[in-house]
Amino acid sequence: MTAAATGMLVPGCSPPSRTGAATRTARGYASGKDDYLRRLRKIEGQVRGLQKMIEADTWCPDVVTQVASATRALQEVAVGLLNDHLRHCVRDAARGSDSGADAALAEVAGAIRQVVRL
Amino acid sequence: MTAAATGMLVPGCSPPSRTGAATRTARGYASGKDDYLRRLRKIEGQVRGLQKMIEADTWCPDVVTQVASATRALQEVAVGLLNDHLRHCVRDAARGSDSGADAALAEVAGAIRQVVRL
Amino acid sequence: MTAAATGMLVPGCSPPSRTGAATRTARGYASGKDDYLRRLRKIEGQVRGLQKMIEADTWCPDVVTQVASATRALQEVAVGLLNDHLRHCVRDAARGSDSGADAALAEVAGAIRQVVRL
Amino acid sequence: MTAAATGMLVPGCSPPSRTGAATRTARGYASGKDDYLRRLRKIEGQVRGLQKMIEADTWCPDVVTQVASATRALQEVAVGLLNDHLRHCVRDAARGSDSGADAALAEVAGAIRQVVRL
Repeated sequence: MTAAATGMLVPGCSPPSRTGAATRTARGYASGKDDYLRRLRKIEGQVRGLQKMIEADTWCPDVVTQVASATRALQEVAVGLLNDHLRHCVRDAARGSDSGADAALAEVAGAIRQVVRL
Repeated sequence: MTAAATGMLVPGCSPPSRTGAATRTARGYASGKDDYLRRLRKIEGQVRGLQKMIEADTWCPDVVTQVASATRALQEVAVGLLNDHLRHCVRDAARGSDSGADAALAEVAGAIRQVVRL
Repeated sequence: MTAAATGMLVPGCSPPSRTGAATRTARGYASGKDDYLRRLRKIEGQVRGLQKMIEADTWCPDVVTQVASATRALQEVAVGLLNDHLRHCVRDAARGSDSGADAALAEVAGAIRQVVRL
Repeated sequence: MTAAATGMLVPGCSPPSRTGAATRTARGYASGKDDYLRRLRKIEGQVRGLQKMIEADTWCPDVVTQVASATRALQEVAVGLLNDHLRHCVRDAARGSDSGADAALAEVAGAIRQVVRL
C-alpha cells in the first residue's frame, strides 16, 4: 500500500509549492539518501582532483578522461533521482486526482528532457 | 610560428610517458588554466550544493535540474580541453613526424569518444 | 477517468507478453501516431540525404552537422515516446496492482537509461 | 608523406568555399566511404523499421530501445567522420599555413560541439 493510499506523506513527493513544516522530510529518494550523499561526495572529490590535474599541467587527454568519468557519475545520479521520483512521487500522484497526475507527469517530462538533452 | 617549429616545448603537449622535469609545465590549456580552475571551482560548489539539496529533502525535479546544470558545465570543460588540445598539442604533433602525428590523433580520437558516449 | 479505472484497454499499454489479438491496437502514443510517423519519415529522408552527401564527397564538417541534426530528431522521438508511455501506460499501471506498477516502473527506468546513456 | 606535403589534394579536405571541379572528389573519409554508406543504409532500414513498429502499435519501451539503437549508430558515424576529418583534413591543414590551420581547428571545434551537445 502506498502513502497516497494511506493518506501519509510520501517522502520526497512534496513539490516546492506545497512544502511546509509538515512536509519538510518529504522525498522520493528517502531510502537512498545516504547513497546519493556518498556518490555526490565522491564526485566532489573528483572535481577537486580535476583542479589538481589542471594545476599540475596534466596531459590533456588524461584530464578529459577524468572529466568524462565525473560526468557519467553525475548522469547516473540524475537517472537514479528520476527513477526514484517516478517510483514514489509520480506513482502516488497517478493514484490521486487526474489534475495532480497530469501536473506530476508534465514535470517529470521536463526533467527527463533536461537529462537527455544536456 | 609554433613551438614545434622553434623546438620549444608546447605547454601541455607532453604526454605522460615523456613527462620529465623539463616538461612539467607542458600543457595545451596554458592560456586558459585560470579559467578552467575557476569553472571547476564553480562546479565543485554546485556539487556541494547538490548535497545540501539532498540533505534538505529537496523536491526531486529541482535536484535533477541542478544535476543537469553541473553535468553541462563539466561537458563544456571537456569540450574546451579537447579543443585546446587540438589547437596546441595535436597541431604541433601534426607538424612533426608521421608516427607522432598518428599517435596524437589516435589518442584524441579516444578522448572524443569518451566525451560523446558518456 | 482512465482506462484502468474503466477496465478498457489503454492504447499502447499492453506489454509484449500480454499482447494478443484483443490488445493489438494498444499504444501509449495513440493520439500522436501520425505525428511520430511524419517525424520518422523526415528522419528517414535525412539519413538518405546523408548517403547522398557521402557519395558526393561532401566536406566532413557539413556531414557531421547533418548527422547531429538527425540524431537530435531521433532523441526527440525517444523522449516523446517515453513521456507518452509515462502519461498513459505507466499512469494506468500505477493505478492498478502494486506488482503491475512495480514492473511498469522498472521497465521505464530501463528505457530512460537507454535514452540517456547512448 | 601527406598530400599537403606533395601538393596533391587530400580526399575530403576541400571546404565548400574551395570546392571546384578539381576538388570534387575531396574527402577525408575516402577509404571508409563504402563503410559509411553501408552503415547509413542500415540506419535507414532501422528508421523504416521504427515506422513499422509505430504502425503496428508496438509496446513503447520496445520502440524506445530501437530508437536508442539507431541514435547510437548515428553517433558512431558522427564520431567516425570527426576522426577521419582530424586524421586527414585537419592534419594536413596543420602542416600548412597558420591561418589555414586556425580555420580548420575552429571548424572542427564547432563540429565536436554539435556532436557532444545534442
